[in-house]
Amino acid sequence: MLVVMQHEATQEQIEGVVTAIRNMGYEARPIPGAQRVAIGLLGNDGRVDPSRIEGLSGVTEVIQVSLPYKVVGREWRPDDTVITLPNGAKIGGGSVVVMAGPCAVESEAQLNTTAAAIAAAGATILRGGAFKPRTSPYAFQGLGLEGLKLLRAAADRHNLAVVTEAIDETSLRQVAEWADIIQIGARNMQNFTLLKAAGQTRKPVLLKRGLSATIQEWLLAAEYIAAEGNEQIILCERGLRSFDPNTRNLLDITAVPVVKQLSHLPVIVDPSHGTGRREKVLPVARAAVAVGADGLIIEVHPKPEEAMSDGPQSLTLPMFDELMIEIAKVGIAVGRPISMATVAK
Amino acid sequence: MLVVMQHEATQEQIEGVVTAIRNMGYEARPIPGAQRVAIGLLGNDGRVDPSRIEGLSGVTEVIQVSLPYKVVGREWRPDDTVITLPNGAKIGGGSVVVMAGPCAVESEAQLNTTAAAIAAAGATILRGGAFKPRTSPYAFQGLGLEGLKLLRAAADRHNLAVVTEAIDETSLRQVAEWADIIQIGARNMQNFTLLKAAGQTRKPVLLKRGLSATIQEWLLAAEYIAAEGNEQIILCERGLRSFDPNTRNLLDITAVPVVKQLSHLPVIVDPSHGTGRREKVLPVARAAVAVGADGLIIEVHPKPEEAMSDGPQSLTLPMFDELMIEIAKVGIAVGRPISMATVAK
Amino acid sequence: MLVVMQHEATQEQIEGVVTAIRNMGYEARPIPGAQRVAIGLLGNDGRVDPSRIEGLSGVTEVIQVSLPYKVVGREWRPDDTVITLPNGAKIGGGSVVVMAGPCAVESEAQLNTTAAAIAAAGATILRGGAFKPRTSPYAFQGLGLEGLKLLRAAADRHNLAVVTEAIDETSLRQVAEWADIIQIGARNMQNFTLLKAAGQTRKPVLLKRGLSATIQEWLLAAEYIAAEGNEQIILCERGLRSFDPNTRNLLDITAVPVVKQLSHLPVIVDPSHGTGRREKVLPVARAAVAVGADGLIIEVHPKPEEAMSDGPQSLTLPMFDELMIEIAKVGIAVGRPISMATVAK
Amino acid sequence: MLVVMQHEATQEQIEGVVTAIRNMGYEARPIPGAQRVAIGLLGNDGRVDPSRIEGLSGVTEVIQVSLPYKVVGREWRPDDTVITLPNGAKIGGGSVVVMAGPCAVESEAQLNTTAAAIAAAGATILRGGAFKPRTSPYAFQGLGLEGLKLLRAAADRHNLAVVTEAIDETSLRQVAEWADIIQIGARNMQNFTLLKAAGQTRKPVLLKRGLSATIQEWLLAAEYIAAEGNEQIILCERGLRSFDPNTRNLLDITAVPVVKQLSHLPVIVDPSHGTGRREKVLPVARAAVAVGADGLIIEVHPKPEEAMSDGPQSLTLPMFDELMIEIAKVGIAVGRPISMATVAK
Repeated sequence: MLVVMQHEATQEQIEGVVTAIRNMGYEARPIPGAQRVAIGLLGNDGRVDPSRIEGLSGVTEVIQVSLPYKVVGREWRPDDTVITLPNGAKIGGGSVVVMAGPCAVESEAQLNTTAAAIAAAGATILRGGAFKPRTSPYAFQGLGLEGLKLLRAAADRHNLAVVTEAIDETSLRQVAEWADIIQIGARNMQNFTLLKAAGQTRKPVLLKRGLSATIQEWLLAAEYIAAEGNEQIILCERGLRSFDPNTRNLLDITAVPVVKQLSHLPVIVDPSHGTGRREKVLPVARAAVAVGADGLIIEVHPKPEEAMSDGPQSLTLPMFDELMIEIAKVGIAVGRPISMATVAK
Repeated sequence: MLVVMQHEATQEQIEGVVTAIRNMGYEARPIPGAQRVAIGLLGNDGRVDPSRIEGLSGVTEVIQVSLPYKVVGREWRPDDTVITLPNGAKIGGGSVVVMAGPCAVESEAQLNTTAAAIAAAGATILRGGAFKPRTSPYAFQGLGLEGLKLLRAAADRHNLAVVTEAIDETSLRQVAEWADIIQIGARNMQNFTLLKAAGQTRKPVLLKRGLSATIQEWLLAAEYIAAEGNEQIILCERGLRSFDPNTRNLLDITAVPVVKQLSHLPVIVDPSHGTGRREKVLPVARAAVAVGADGLIIEVHPKPEEAMSDGPQSLTLPMFDELMIEIAKVGIAVGRPISMATVAK
Repeated sequence: MLVVMQHEATQEQIEGVVTAIRNMGYEARPIPGAQRVAIGLLGNDGRVDPSRIEGLSGVTEVIQVSLPYKVVGREWRPDDTVITLPNGAKIGGGSVVVMAGPCAVESEAQLNTTAAAIAAAGATILRGGAFKPRTSPYAFQGLGLEGLKLLRAAADRHNLAVVTEAIDETSLRQVAEWADIIQIGARNMQNFTLLKAAGQTRKPVLLKRGLSATIQEWLLAAEYIAAEGNEQIILCERGLRSFDPNTRNLLDITAVPVVKQLSHLPVIVDPSHGTGRREKVLPVARAAVAVGADGLIIEVHPKPEEAMSDGPQSLTLPMFDELMIEIAKVGIAVGRPISMATVAK
Repeated sequence: MLVVMQHEATQEQIEGVVTAIRNMGYEARPIPGAQRVAIGLLGNDGRVDPSRIEGLSGVTEVIQVSLPYKVVGREWRPDDTVITLPNGAKIGGGSVVVMAGPCAVESEAQLNTTAAAIAAAGATILRGGAFKPRTSPYAFQGLGLEGLKLLRAAADRHNLAVVTEAIDETSLRQVAEWADIIQIGARNMQNFTLLKAAGQTRKPVLLKRGLSATIQEWLLAAEYIAAEGNEQIILCERGLRSFDPNTRNLLDITAVPVVKQLSHLPVIVDPSHGTGRREKVLPVARAAVAVGADGLIIEVHPKPEEAMSDGPQSLTLPMFDELMIEIAKVGIAVGRPISMATVAK
């Protein structure tokens, strides 16, 4: 960490910073410059809170040189994290996993049709919302526990794993019981109590990036989970808030290689929320595989025009079949094969 | 609600939309145009979920004409909501209330010094974080219940009300017991479980705007609270995520008159988080009073250079004294007097 | 166009809007609703200025239903525009073209080495800035006309076409004389005088998207060029302004399929500016080809560490060789072959 | 400037950076750290181009410690710039100046009515667009030179100065001849050729902030003008691009005190473009005066419902009268009186 002093900082102010750093248990090294003094903090273990220093008299800026996340950072653990699910599917480590299913769990028939179709097409993980965070209090909020049971049953019938969202501590306990992966949604990326609770389970966690979260904030959110002892974390880029009404969100495709350089965690992409329009899902899914994503999460519905939510971005079953074929070609081209259901068995 | 059909939509697709609208219990009225057909949905009571329609075949766009929030909207309740606290302070209705105190509760001495000073300067509400949502898991997370008790004691000694943040259901119960206003932070603006829980208390709720929330999303978050029966809601603009590192956040001053036109709820401004720099707090506080805000929430610390968090944006006690004098002048100029402690007694 | 009236609009205000629309030469059709009246404007030929209507008494909102660009829109011209350059290279129509070269023209040796290498690797167009728009007045501003001549000579030696930026009317005349494609940079996307001047030449124009331009504004900027009679326009996505310092810009990969649906113009991607870091160029270039881009523009420098500008995002020559091989594989996987130099001859 | 080396940088890479800095004529001072080495560049005169260093092998980041603008920065010139216009109006130095008039010059009658009214209300500068930069090529583009002459005549009749926009070199020459202040619009903030041309005139320049420009980019754009010898520059905050459709732009009120700390140039606010809605102009104008702006620029039209552009954000003449009275009260409250027409005479 580097503390830049003001142009006109006094010797007393400089010594104040040096003393403060030493009182925190670190070494301080002043660096005189032509126009101003800077003070290096040595021995930073990632636990230094810069706002303790920023408020000191004479300080103009505090610059972080070390990265503030340790457990999820690649600096201290170079090898990719690979997560293995009960059905044999693997996330991370060079292949591409596909999660698919409806936005919301609506009925047994809907789920069974979808699960059969996605398994046949090669997906290994069934998605579907039982607890729905909705912008309006008057929108459909999900089937809850009943939805979880429907997901589990449909998935088991086709050797699929289950990923579904938890929105609070109560639903988290239920999701941890019935599903294989606990999803934390974009709106809850900095719900720190929920992150800690997810960190105390022993189930893999899918952590979506917040609507306007920096990559550092996202990795620090993952660090909250990891700091509780659960390092099975999958990051998911799902698009950022944008000024342009042409797309629902602004998918940050570059986040994939950026995160993979900074962290050993697997990163997947959600082209359904990232674009908001079904005809954009295929091209963006191809791009996600090409850029190096470890997986995709895709909204699929047997009858999108009857979907209770997100109909416009849901693929039909034939469109999903086509998508699986198309991304398989791209996966081969970039040396990242799609891990198909048969592989997972 | 208006459903715009695609240029080349067939008669069958148009009838599909008409039928879907009627099945939802509303009236549908097709409007032929030169280039495309639009279909009006009549009788919208704010409970129509547009995504049910967006997914239908042949639909290009669904345009919301009515506003989707009802209880917090001004359309059906023209008069300003005024909230009265146990110490007599009033929020809304033409005067300006000031909440002040440290970012984090650190000690009894810190709080007592601060409470005495802000009360003497005319503030009526003490703020201070006992539960701190922090970006890093390694940063100071607050004193918890002990902090709440210290806040209550310091406030009571000076006839101040207490506002403090709840970050989950557990802390919410404690905050509801010890404080006068429950604060929901920006990162939790769409933590719908927390919003519902706050709506089930009978304490006023201070709802901060999310880092990249639209005004409509913010009012819908308030609607979540109101839909549970608690209409004592105070909105707080605290700055949006920005691309410019010169300020911590980008304060949206125009949000104040925009929200006051759309809603009857009081709106306050947080110039401390909104700017992130103490020397910007006074000018922006003046601007907030001038623009018509119903109050301010200001970070104050007896020794900002020793603050455990947010030191750089905390005012010293003499700076706060000066701020109270300066905003009082602006309040008189715009016909919105500051409600001083003496008024509250 | 649909004019939504206020809830409480009077009959007189409604008639005022109807009269105004008729005076502009269009047909007006009032649509009564349960809560408010809307008025349809029929016969919109894309030349209706909505701000003429927005200011009328009683109007709450004007909604554009038709798209405001006509010549560049796909609605009236479904077939892709294909541009053929003097060296035989084609842009648009199903293959992928590669433009490469240094950020700035620095010397004859630099250009010759680069041109030889990119031609050998299969690129067909040489890029390089002779006129540089720089944020600081003290930064290197380019070699000007001398740079154009160096570009032309190096390109001709290797059967390459030349693309280079014009920053004002004077440089535009020179670029139009010496280059094959006139580049308009992101900062000049709404420099309407420059757009009109480019529209009056008969050279293809590469129009970069502005730092925070909506897709509609970008297509309207293209419409400025097209309205002057020059329809040989190539659009280039190069990343948007972002709040996250981890990347220089936020590349909007979804813009490619969005634009290709709305317009018949070819769209290329600039992964060098889009990411700002050379190690991110290869993955994002793969993604761009996978998503359906008609081409790439890539910064390459024989010695990036000596580059006068944009060194950190420039590929070395061996990295560029590898990129061409890798994107060729992706191009085959998505059915969009890279148009190689040999094809162009 | 501080060059941060990668964790694993070799001694050879460190020496490469040291040599490069020395070759540029500056002093290099390596600073060993616990985890990585940093290298200070001493003697930076603001002309060091960081991208020359960022591309060097082993470099992870280059941190600017000094500010890159010199002539417009307050660091080297602490006193406020005050600009005096031919009619006696002063901009900067503690009072608040008001510029007002229609978005576009439409007719002699329109201008005369407006000029008489704003002068009577106390404004000292007439605004009005003769050259209009419009998003669509089919929108009204302004009366050009004829409009300039109408502005001059109307202004002279009421002892007003004239501010109007130049959009290219041709219109700049005409504006410099007929007006008192040359306006550079937001879309042209980084049209460097236009900035240099404005810097070569001896007329004051009003420089609007770009739609997504950082404050540093804005001040560097001003530095372009100043570097040509024209230091009579007025900065104008007019709102940033936003994701929220509720306002046309997102006015950055905090930019006023931020810029005034960094620069000695006067800063004014445009609440008309900043909000896009006439009923928001008065509250935001009050806020701008309260925050310390040196002036306002306001759109006024005798009949906004007939305005050729920007009708929805134009004040009527009686609304402008009220605004002048209201901001005068705020000006007194913050010790920044409005400079009225009578003062200017």
